[in-house]
This record gives sequence, structure tokens and C-alpha cells, in this order.
Amino acid sequence: MLEELTSRKLDALIITHLPNVRYLCGFTGSSGVLLLTPTKSVFFTDGRYTTQARAEVTGLTVVISRKSALAAAAEWVLVRIPRKSKMAVGIESEHLTIASRDSLARQLSSRFRLRGTVTLVERLRMIKEADEIAIIRRAVLLGANLFEHILKKIQPGISEMEIAAELEYAARRAGAQEMSFSTIVAAGPRSALPHARASAQRVPRRAFVLLDFGVILQGYCSDMTRTVCVGHVSRAARDVYEAVREAQQAAVDAVRPGASVAEVDGAARKVLRRAKLARYFRHSIGHGVGLEIHELPRVAAGQQEQLHPGTVITIEPGVYIAGHGGVRIEDMVVVNGNGCEVLTPSSKELIVL
Amino acid sequence: MLEELTSRKLDALIITHLPNVRYLCGFTGSSGVLLLTPTKSVFFTDGRYTTQARAEVTGLTVVISRKSALAAAAEWVLVRIPRKSKMAVGIESEHLTIASRDSLARQLSSRFRLRGTVTLVERLRMIKEADEIAIIRRAVLLGANLFEHILKKIQPGISEMEIAAELEYAARRAGAQEMSFSTIVAAGPRSALPHARASAQRVPRRAFVLLDFGVILQGYCSDMTRTVCVGHVSRAARDVYEAVREAQQAAVDAVRPGASVAEVDGAARKVLRRAKLARYFRHSIGHGVGLEIHELPRVAAGQQEQLHPGTVITIEPGVYIAGHGGVRIEDMVVVNGNGCEVLTPSSKELIVL
Repeated sequence: MLEELTSRKLDALIITHLPNVRYLCGFTGSSGVLLLTPTKSVFFTDGRYTTQARAEVTGLTVVISRKSALAAAAEWVLVRIPRKSKMAVGIESEHLTIASRDSLARQLSSRFRLRGTVTLVERLRMIKEADEIAIIRRAVLLGANLFEHILKKIQPGISEMEIAAELEYAARRAGAQEMSFSTIVAAGPRSALPHARASAQRVPRRAFVLLDFGVILQGYCSDMTRTVCVGHVSRAARDVYEAVREAQQAAVDAVRPGASVAEVDGAARKVLRRAKLARYFRHSIGHGVGLEIHELPRVAAGQQEQLHPGTVITIEPGVYIAGHGGVRIEDMVVVNGNGCEVLTPSSKELIVL
Repeated sequence: MLEELTSRKLDALIITHLPNVRYLCGFTGSSGVLLLTPTKSVFFTDGRYTTQARAEVTGLTVVISRKSALAAAAEWVLVRIPRKSKMAVGIESEHLTIASRDSLARQLSSRFRLRGTVTLVERLRMIKEADEIAIIRRAVLLGANLFEHILKKIQPGISEMEIAAELEYAARRAGAQEMSFSTIVAAGPRSALPHARASAQRVPRRAFVLLDFGVILQGYCSDMTRTVCVGHVSRAARDVYEAVREAQQAAVDAVRPGASVAEVDGAARKVLRRAKLARYFRHSIGHGVGLEIHELPRVAAGQQEQLHPGTVITIEPGVYIAGHGGVRIEDMVVVNGNGCEVLTPSSKELIVL
């Protein structure tokens, strides 16, 4: 990060986005600000986190403040940064609110100029280190085990929420800190809602059941989707499933260092176009995953980003036919030297329960 | 809200904070923007939410866009708002990021002036309607039932995470959409960390176990804390517990329409000062609860806010002695005509397991 400060001619950089704070200094609490200067890094939090901050944040100064962490950081900048006529202080434009920026500007004197930065830390986070990939791998494997477990519970009459309850209970008992996001369980026509949370709806006798969930281990998220079938599968339903499966595989096959994310998206859409299903695939094909469930890169049409070894993304095409049902299949993959490794071990064959 | 537009001379107001969007138009998804003008309200979302938006958002125009909801709202403003020389467009300063504001400003022409607003919708949300209180009451009762249930599971040797798993499983099975926040289970010395998440730590033979959790029903949060004792209770530990209990009761007794939130905070601190424990109480005494787990009012020293009937807040003093342990007791209360009603029915007597 220090090179970033120098190259951007910043006298200080205030990191407020908590996943970025955690990435850079290890703090896992809900309130903390990291201040970086070319000569010193300081972490600010409040009294609720005294013990935790001292345990987690090592190798830099920790300030426990009665003020908000941001106000404490501003005060430090005001008092401690060597005086020169004009000072540039970087802030995270995509995370800091207008109100926080205004309050920071009021607190600092006019010799400080706030300068917006974007994705400085996020771009570092995009390339995972080996130890991060190892944690992600464990989180993904836990997810896959939960999927195997939950298959035994899915049957006509059980509600989506009961399925989610069983899944999350097993996740917790297996050591998950929490779920990566609100568990999606969508049965029958609700599977056509790409972002349906589990509801009181019961599984019909014949239906797709879409499960999209993830767990957090040591701060890192997993994310997977499988769509299974309960009861008899019509020919049309099987055709939709197989088209999504083929599209997902085509996108996985397109992942390699140097490929653009748009190519990956395009590979799946091409398959769905051939099956005349492309118009039912209305979201982007994937996203980076790490300390956040959605992080860089966005894997979507129109994005120029190129993939690099160490990047972890989801590949998750879906086809949603309103009133009928939907199919989505999602793996996590890590870009490696010549292609990618699929982290999610679960079968993608259509499972009929 | 329309009076707010008129009184602030706004030609339009763009609501981006999702709980505010939900409050005003009923949309429960994760991506949507509400645009209010003196003559028309329009809701914007993307293709993932087509079906859901049409079901939830009634009585106003729904626009499904391929762009981001915010970009779609800006386009609508640009094209549809009657032309006059200078137009004021309100934005939510405490929620909109600097980057989103900049992108909005770029998209709109120079005849539009963005004007920051704060807590416009939050102040409406602070006074709950009867139907909101009814939902909150159900969420609080569910929380209390979960507490009764989990008491049977707490014993030496069980881990904090196992306790959280049991609690959350029971919550889900009882119909909770999700937990209001990461469940806090903190045993022994960890109870001195005010914001300790459940960890792999096991309950010792003699210890405080602090439980702080809540559930979401129909979008509304509950929040409660109880601290129980496992094994023998020392005289000193009991004294701390009783001081916190007395402080909590004093604060509850101070809640009435017209009282300032600082008075409520002060009532608890006064009790703790007498017990020479005030310096171990380092967070504010409470917060509003509703569609968000933390919302207005902040109930803290130095705040001028007065309480009004219909306001729902937590009362949660705590004493945390690093290396030893902590005690926090938290109820939710609703301000009524002449005082308040404690919504949380669970006993505050020290429970020894």
C-alpha cells in the first residue's frame, strides 16, 4: 500500500471500508479505521474493542478513542502529520458516505485536501495469496458437505425455511462463523426469482428446488448454487437444466489468465442463445469472492477486466422462466497458471429426489 | 414525505437506503431506488426483481432497468422532470457514497443541483405505527422464547458456537427470516468483550455466559441480551450483576415521552457510579430498533433527542471487566403515553445454571 500512497502523491490514506481494514491490519470488529501515512500506520477504534484490537492488530499503533474512529483518525492527521502547505488525504469514495466526507472535511483544516480513491485495496484483495486460497478452499468444501447433507432433507411438503434452517444449523455445527448471505431456497415457481430468500412455501410434489448459499470461515466466504428436482422431471425441464449446465461448463472452460471477464460471460450466453434461452438469463455470470461475498472482479458483459492467477470468482449462469421455474448452477473457481481450478466438488448432474 | 419535498424546496428526492425504500414503498429486495417528486413516485430496480417488485410495490410506477437502479432514476429525472432553470434533487447524504454521488452528478446536467438531506425518512421511521409495533412485539416474543429454549442447552463444555447454532436453528424453525445480527455468545472472560461473536470457546465450569441476539420477522428486528451464570456465583460477580440490573431498571424507569435520551443514559450511569462500576460501562445505553437493528434515536449521553410515543428503543447497560468477565442486560421498550412498556418479557433475575 505504501507504493500506492507515493505514486498517488497522498500524504495519508484513510481506510474506512471494514473488509479493507481487515485485509490490511487484521481487525475483525464492526468499527475501526486504518490510517496509512508514508511513515506510520495507525488503527483507530472505540472502547468496545479495546481487548480485541490489541489482540488482532499487531505491528502498528492502536488508538482507542471515545470519539468515532473516523473522527479520531482526523484528529490524528490534524495534529500529527508534519506541517506543509497542502496535504492530500486519500479517502475511499466507493465506501465513504457524503455525510462522513463532509464531517471529515469540517474537522480537517483547509490545508488538507480530501482526494477520492477507488478500489485501491480491492485490487490488492482480488489476487489471493496461497493462505487465503487455503481458507477459501475449506469454506467451499464445507459448503459442498452441507449440500450433500441437505439433499437428505429435501422432499415434498418441507418448507423452504425448514430447509434453510437445517442447512444453517449444520453449517454452524460444522464451525461456520455465519452464512455468507441470506440463504436462498426457492421451490417450484419461486425458483424463477433469482434472489428469492427462503420462505414459508412448501416443496411441491414435482418441482425444481434451487439452493444458493455460502458459509464464512475465518472471514472468507463461500458461495454455491445447485438446482435439484423433486418428483418426475419433464423433458422440457431437463432440457433447460442441461442447457444451463452446458453454459456453466463453457464459462468455466473460458476462465484462464489473460481472458477478459466479458469472454467468460459470453461463453455461457453463446450456449444459451443456441438453446434459445439467452433471454431468460438476466444477471451477470459471476463475481469475485473473498472477505466479501461480492468483490472484484465483476464477471459480466461489457467489463474489460482481465483475469489473473489467484483470482477467485463464481460462475453462475441461470435461466428463469416467470411462473414456471428456474435453474442456476454455481461453482467457485480459482484462476491458476494456465486455466482455472474448480473449487466446488459437488456434482452438476441433475439430481432427482 | 411530499410535505418534506415542498418544505425543503426539492423538485425530486432520490431514496437509496434500502430500509428507507422498503418503509416507503414495500420493496424488500437488495437493489432498488425510489424517486419522489411532488407529482409522481417511481420505483427502479433491475431484471432480477421483476416479479418481486411488481408484487411488492403497488400504487406507483415500477421501472425495470438494465442499468443500475440509481442510473435509471437519474435518467428518469433528466428526461421526465419538467424543465425549469434550476432543479434541486435531494439525496441521502448519510447513505449515498461519494462515488455514487459523483456518478449521479455526471449523469445529470448542470441545471440539476444535488442537495444533501439527512434522516428525512429515518425520522418518520422513528415513530412506529401500531402495525409496526405489533410485528416488533412478535419478534421480541420469539426472541424471549428462544432464550427460554437455549437455557436448557447451556452447560460447561458446550462451545459458544454450538449455543449459537442451537439458538439460530430454533429461530429459523420458529419462522425467523434471519437473525438481526451476528449472534453474540460470550462465555467466561470473553463476556468482557462487548461485541464478541460466538467462538469455538467452551463454557467453563464457573462463568458468566452473555447472550445477545435478535430475530427478523417481516423485516422488523428484535434485540435482547441476558447474562446467565454457570456454576457457583461469587459474591463479587453477583454484586456486578445486581448493579447492572438496577442500572437497567433505572434507565427503563426514566423512559417517558418528553424525556431526553441523555436522561435515560444518565439514569443508568448514576446507579453504576454509586456501585463504582461506571468506568466499566463504555458504550451507549441503547438505540432505536425497527427495520434496522440500529436506527434512530441514538440513546446516549450528549444526545438532545426527546422521546416520543411510538418510539422503540433498547435499554442495555453493561459492565465489562477485562480478563474477568462482563454482564449486560438488554430489553426492548416502546414509549407510550405516560412512560414505556417493556416488550421483552424474560426475567432479569440472575439465572444460575
